[in-house]
Amino acid sequence: MYDNTTMRLQMDPLILSALREDITSEDVSTNSVMRDYALGEVYLIAKEDGIVCGLTVFERVFKLLDENTVVEFEAKDGDSVSVGQKLATVRGDIRVLLSGERTALNYLQRMSGVATYTSKVAKLLEGSNIKLLDTRKTTPNNRIFEKYAVRVGGGNNHRYNLSDGVLLKDNHIGAAGSVKKAVEMAKEYAPFVRKIEVEVETLDMVREAVEAKADIIMLDNMKHDTIREAMEIIDGRAEVEVSGNVTKENIEKLKDLGVDYISSGALTHSSPILDLSLKNLHAI
Amino acid sequence: MYDNTTMRLQMDPLILSALREDITSEDVSTNSVMRDYALGEVYLIAKEDGIVCGLTVFERVFKLLDENTVVEFEAKDGDSVSVGQKLATVRGDIRVLLSGERTALNYLQRMSGVATYTSKVAKLLEGSNIKLLDTRKTTPNNRIFEKYAVRVGGGNNHRYNLSDGVLLKDNHIGAAGSVKKAVEMAKEYAPFVRKIEVEVETLDMVREAVEAKADIIMLDNMKHDTIREAMEIIDGRAEVEVSGNVTKENIEKLKDLGVDYISSGALTHSSPILDLSLKNLHAI
Amino acid sequence: MYDNTTMRLQMDPLILSALREDITSEDVSTNSVMRDYALGEVYLIAKEDGIVCGLTVFERVFKLLDENTVVEFEAKDGDSVSVGQKLATVRGDIRVLLSGERTALNYLQRMSGVATYTSKVAKLLEGSNIKLLDTRKTTPNNRIFEKYAVRVGGGNNHRYNLSDGVLLKDNHIGAAGSVKKAVEMAKEYAPFVRKIEVEVETLDMVREAVEAKADIIMLDNMKHDTIREAMEIIDGRAEVEVSGNVTKENIEKLKDLGVDYISSGALTHSSPILDLSLKNLHAI
Amino acid sequence: MYDNTTMRLQMDPLILSALREDITSEDVSTNSVMRDYALGEVYLIAKEDGIVCGLTVFERVFKLLDENTVVEFEAKDGDSVSVGQKLATVRGDIRVLLSGERTALNYLQRMSGVATYTSKVAKLLEGSNIKLLDTRKTTPNNRIFEKYAVRVGGGNNHRYNLSDGVLLKDNHIGAAGSVKKAVEMAKEYAPFVRKIEVEVETLDMVREAVEAKADIIMLDNMKHDTIREAMEIIDGRAEVEVSGNVTKENIEKLKDLGVDYISSGALTHSSPILDLSLKNLHAI
Amino acid sequence: MYDNTTMRLQMDPLILSALREDITSEDVSTNSVMRDYALGEVYLIAKEDGIVCGLTVFERVFKLLDENTVVEFEAKDGDSVSVGQKLATVRGDIRVLLSGERTALNYLQRMSGVATYTSKVAKLLEGSNIKLLDTRKTTPNNRIFEKYAVRVGGGNNHRYNLSDGVLLKDNHIGAAGSVKKAVEMAKEYAPFVRKIEVEVETLDMVREAVEAKADIIMLDNMKHDTIREAMEIIDGRAEVEVSGNVTKENIEKLKDLGVDYISSGALTHSSPILDLSLKNLHAI
Amino acid sequence: MYDNTTMRLQMDPLILSALREDITSEDVSTNSVMRDYALGEVYLIAKEDGIVCGLTVFERVFKLLDENTVVEFEAKDGDSVSVGQKLATVRGDIRVLLSGERTALNYLQRMSGVATYTSKVAKLLEGSNIKLLDTRKTTPNNRIFEKYAVRVGGGNNHRYNLSDGVLLKDNHIGAAGSVKKAVEMAKEYAPFVRKIEVEVETLDMVREAVEAKADIIMLDNMKHDTIREAMEIIDGRAEVEVSGNVTKENIEKLKDLGVDYISSGALTHSSPILDLSLKNLHAI
Repeated sequence: MYDNTTMRLQMDPLILSALREDITSEDVSTNSVMRDYALGEVYLIAKEDGIVCGLTVFERVFKLLDENTVVEFEAKDGDSVSVGQKLATVRGDIRVLLSGERTALNYLQRMSGVATYTSKVAKLLEGSNIKLLDTRKTTPNNRIFEKYAVRVGGGNNHRYNLSDGVLLKDNHIGAAGSVKKAVEMAKEYAPFVRKIEVEVETLDMVREAVEAKADIIMLDNMKHDTIREAMEIIDGRAEVEVSGNVTKENIEKLKDLGVDYISSGALTHSSPILDLSLKNLHAI
Repeated sequence: MYDNTTMRLQMDPLILSALREDITSEDVSTNSVMRDYALGEVYLIAKEDGIVCGLTVFERVFKLLDENTVVEFEAKDGDSVSVGQKLATVRGDIRVLLSGERTALNYLQRMSGVATYTSKVAKLLEGSNIKLLDTRKTTPNNRIFEKYAVRVGGGNNHRYNLSDGVLLKDNHIGAAGSVKKAVEMAKEYAPFVRKIEVEVETLDMVREAVEAKADIIMLDNMKHDTIREAMEIIDGRAEVEVSGNVTKENIEKLKDLGVDYISSGALTHSSPILDLSLKNLHAI
Repeated sequence: MYDNTTMRLQMDPLILSALREDITSEDVSTNSVMRDYALGEVYLIAKEDGIVCGLTVFERVFKLLDENTVVEFEAKDGDSVSVGQKLATVRGDIRVLLSGERTALNYLQRMSGVATYTSKVAKLLEGSNIKLLDTRKTTPNNRIFEKYAVRVGGGNNHRYNLSDGVLLKDNHIGAAGSVKKAVEMAKEYAPFVRKIEVEVETLDMVREAVEAKADIIMLDNMKHDTIREAMEIIDGRAEVEVSGNVTKENIEKLKDLGVDYISSGALTHSSPILDLSLKNLHAI
Repeated sequence: MYDNTTMRLQMDPLILSALREDITSEDVSTNSVMRDYALGEVYLIAKEDGIVCGLTVFERVFKLLDENTVVEFEAKDGDSVSVGQKLATVRGDIRVLLSGERTALNYLQRMSGVATYTSKVAKLLEGSNIKLLDTRKTTPNNRIFEKYAVRVGGGNNHRYNLSDGVLLKDNHIGAAGSVKKAVEMAKEYAPFVRKIEVEVETLDMVREAVEAKADIIMLDNMKHDTIREAMEIIDGRAEVEVSGNVTKENIEKLKDLGVDYISSGALTHSSPILDLSLKNLHAI
Repeated sequence: MYDNTTMRLQMDPLILSALREDITSEDVSTNSVMRDYALGEVYLIAKEDGIVCGLTVFERVFKLLDENTVVEFEAKDGDSVSVGQKLATVRGDIRVLLSGERTALNYLQRMSGVATYTSKVAKLLEGSNIKLLDTRKTTPNNRIFEKYAVRVGGGNNHRYNLSDGVLLKDNHIGAAGSVKKAVEMAKEYAPFVRKIEVEVETLDMVREAVEAKADIIMLDNMKHDTIREAMEIIDGRAEVEVSGNVTKENIEKLKDLGVDYISSGALTHSSPILDLSLKNLHAI
Repeated sequence: MYDNTTMRLQMDPLILSALREDITSEDVSTNSVMRDYALGEVYLIAKEDGIVCGLTVFERVFKLLDENTVVEFEAKDGDSVSVGQKLATVRGDIRVLLSGERTALNYLQRMSGVATYTSKVAKLLEGSNIKLLDTRKTTPNNRIFEKYAVRVGGGNNHRYNLSDGVLLKDNHIGAAGSVKKAVEMAKEYAPFVRKIEVEVETLDMVREAVEAKADIIMLDNMKHDTIREAMEIIDGRAEVEVSGNVTKENIEKLKDLGVDYISSGALTHSSPILDLSLKNLHAI
């Protein structure tokens, strides 16, 4: 599960903002009928098979409304769960259980959806040495949650954002004048702990990138035969990332070429949610 | 497009937060190779057919980085666009175009994805009097964008959040003692401009809700025959919402029953993005 | 008392902001003479007769400075209190009692003032079926506190803000072209859980509003005879709100007309505070 | 009018917060009927006689929604205005005029109310050398606005908050051991640019305060004869503040005693608003 | 140590901001190798002789990450510490100890640096009646920490900021027309609890300032003989501050002149840090 | 100069916070004597020789108070400036020039101080291939300014924070079990664009780090002969950083050993400011 530090510093403000999006003054329905504290509990149930992810975030939503809420987990992030399975019991002020339900589930369902989808794609890569990468194509203000879900689902994280990784694309190369010049400028400017990645489209660019000592070369939109030639040119002198089209056939063909990484935006921008719900709320 | 007031008050803080998520110190790649201002332009191109939505948000991302950025639109929210179509030209400091690209597209792709998917579902309802509704199952911190996209796609908005609409579910009814009591308590407590909606599961509850003068009755998970009976009981004395399962067959059967609304969480929680990209960045 | 959720999400940020308004670096007077923790207690005393309101907010001010502060209440929101009556004991670090005193009282006195004044006006309506409503004429950044105080004082809340209630005034009607058109546009645009209210000035507008199926009709600034005619036209087909001039005579005349609501801005914008103070601080 | 610096740094965040309180997603009524920009203007009219105050804040509300809004003033802060008088024309996007109206008036009415009430009290002091002071009994999150209004109304500001003025009350004195010790500790601890004020209740305390070289002595709740004796003891060696009870008779008696200041919490906590409104909105 | 109120209201937001500057997503190094909670402790050790300051802030950094962290102090703010001395034991989740270390030390080292340097300068003033003052030349967003450190080191605080102290410089005097006019305008405008300080450059200005009843006169950049003459002119009728050049010789010469204060910007803008470190982290 | 994007997203909030630290309500001195707008200008003058840095930040302070302020530069970041040299003219509302002066100079002086000191240290490395690095020992809430100043002064940036660079220290290694295990865990956990740096204290650890394929090895506190042996073991298979003690003699000895980087905390934590001031403010 996510460490406390990241929760406090990065997630809490976003979770609170999400709660304020859902409750701009008060939960009118709940306050209409429940004027006072009443202890209750409710069960978190899977309504689909998949990989659960985000249980700490789910818990945090309720704790931010009332720190006395207790969540007892019967599953942990990364577990395969199946329809009907009980994953947790949430116990606390019934009004808090009702007011926090939607926000807690919105996070949990999305994170579990990303983990589930990532897990399916990652399975396609089993038996190869290729690792699955995410991208920056995440939902605005949800990156910290979605990148974590990718990892839980068996994927790896590419750079977190524009500040902590260098990826020189055609426009950067154009501005610099050449691949070589771009890599040099980045090595001179960027903190030296950054690896330099270059996106290339032709074999000439591949050659240039290798000569410029790029740490990572991304082969963009290349045909299979061109990838093979590129791999021969690179010959282990840089890590290699291939982007897009993570289909069974495609991967079958890539397996033997020695590609290190394959990246997919769909992991975070187009995975459907995993259906989960809170059931059987009752006073205790 | 969205009005200025909502943009300033509600969207700007979220867009800025999204930009800060992507740029925690600086855009290292861009700053490595472009040390100075250079004027350039880039085209927004559709890579799939669909409904475009979020153009004002797309523009705002760049304007928040540099208010001198200019976006010339060749399409507007709600337009059907087709693969290869040019939707806009963005003109400004090349560094700003590069640094804002991902965040601008992340918003635009998601909003267009929701509008496109909503539009497909809304088509299923054509020829009936049933209106399509969204839910609160939105992505955390993206509700204002997603609810707007539903509308652009041809759907209608249910309540915005827990504070501005009353929906009494089983737990509320349980706490109150009965449907009747719950409606009474809500009418007494809630601002009188709120309609009172009750979620019911049985025909007895339907009867109670009608007698209690609920403004809206939501038939939850009812079989078709039960819905028919419920409609007869209600007999125009309340608006009726049916939730879930928005399939062709299902809708065909609902069309003649006089149901007013059908709601679908999938509109916002599981629609894939619409693929769009920035192409041909060049200095001018 | 206010529920925890609203306190955490909506009130805490405002209370903290109020405390920071009063303590921009440190409480110099207190820190000059008290360098260390010392346990003490102080009594909350009524200095006027009235309705007390805001006790949870009063307590929260101290708890936000030091969560170990304890407040023992001898009254609850809505109680009639009389001069000299002890309402609570606050126990904790004397420095916290001193530093929080003014902010805690500023909230409590204002909220109690609103509740007290509302209660007096509400009494005028006793014996009628007319309900008393507040308006959006609240003190900036204090609406959540003042609307609650209105309720505690025996009033009802009109819409909370511009986003959660529709009220079509002359300018909206002018822009739409007619009352009928305005109501139609609102029904089409607004989330369907909103009731549509129309402000009318003439009997023709009343007729139009009824025909357009407005949910609520506000009779603005009408003479008594015109109100009577309006009520006959409406004939139970919409709820009716009358605004302004909540005087004894006025109300006497309205009682028999079947008006549902009377709204008054003065409840929140012009009620004087209720005088309360902290007395007899002593170490324990 | 208020300087730009204070507006930007201190007022803008509060005004934005007030606008967000009133528009949590969008202005539904306005957006229902006005989908596009339309230029219009509206007049600010006095509906009561009084002192107008807060015109810059009024203007700023609209400018924060749309910086192209223009306000042409025909009065300035501190002017006596009379019922029916036109004070300003606001010109801009009609939607902005409608959405900002309530928040702009809520500020202007309250500030004008404080200025008007202060002006009446200040008139009672004319012909004497006694100055009128405000207190920290301001509305939470409105101090910057209300303290300014006091000044516009002819009053003077006491300390702004707990951090920028030292006022030693009975509890501080008790903690220190004596008036003398408290003043010494404050002189040693507080930044030396702070004057030291002591609140005293007996003539012995007056003597002690003078000996301790307090800069200001506040005579709390003393009878008239005691005040006279206190003034003789002080004999010009400290400034003197009297608190409370600002009535005509009271002031008449104080005039000759040489008291420097009289402070009144009512200026900010209990002044009714000044009625003002926006009239005759029309397209241009 | 700093009182709780100031910590909560003023320091917590700055400390959290500093932590977020250092951890924009997660502590990758720590999370790589420590996936779970493990209890540990680490010692705070002085690596130089000096005055320690900021221990409460040091502790707060860890508590904000995990409120269960415990710090046992063996020294307190203001203590002289010597190289190798153990000042505290920090006990808690090892991951929190690692993630918070740098931010905690950055605060503690800087505050101790300021206290140590101030203490050295203050020693030069021993035996005189001259007090040492800081200035507003503090590090942005660190004033609350640095002003406290000056006090701990034996200095006194000048005004905290532009809002809580009046200091009329040449430009203010120029705008007013004369020293006399400037003082009068300030006395009329500023809250009456502010002392009025005037910065003067000539003996004529000194005379004017005395006549205008300035509370404090700052002799700016005057030669020793001129200072002597100025002191004779002032003759106890105002407090006197001399700025700059706090050297041994300079002070020796000032001692007999009756100057009250000497201020130094270097205390906060140029003191080197005091070297401190966390040593011997181990599981327990 | 800093790019617009970083200024808007990262610097503006910190600059505004610094301004609010200095002006909690209003600039009382300025507002006392200048009630209205008056155009003026003032010169930025160097009072010491050094490297100027932070001119864009200096300008931004004034622009945030009033966007109409104009700064004409006669120098740019990185320029050597000498005492008495005029660096810029600031033109705008005199009140803004006065109110922003201190905050603008506090930033500029500190950043120029860091650049000047860094430049001196960097000069010691001339003629070698060793690059100078900063650390995370920056002033809280000033890292973005100080890291930039290091670069302007001729230094290079190490990682920006705990999230964007991996540095495995003794405690991480201890938790993992061995250098090898720690590097493996980091390679598996961290985004693959991160280089892995290991801090080592013995030659055995050096060997392990090389075998584990660490990207960067930091030799901590090693004697000169040990460093030489370490370099032989590493033999170009990793980049090498040496920390601390950047003295002339030390560097002379390191020059021939092939060390790549030397890091120094003093660049940011102990450099004195560069003295700069605003002179000759006058109306125009």
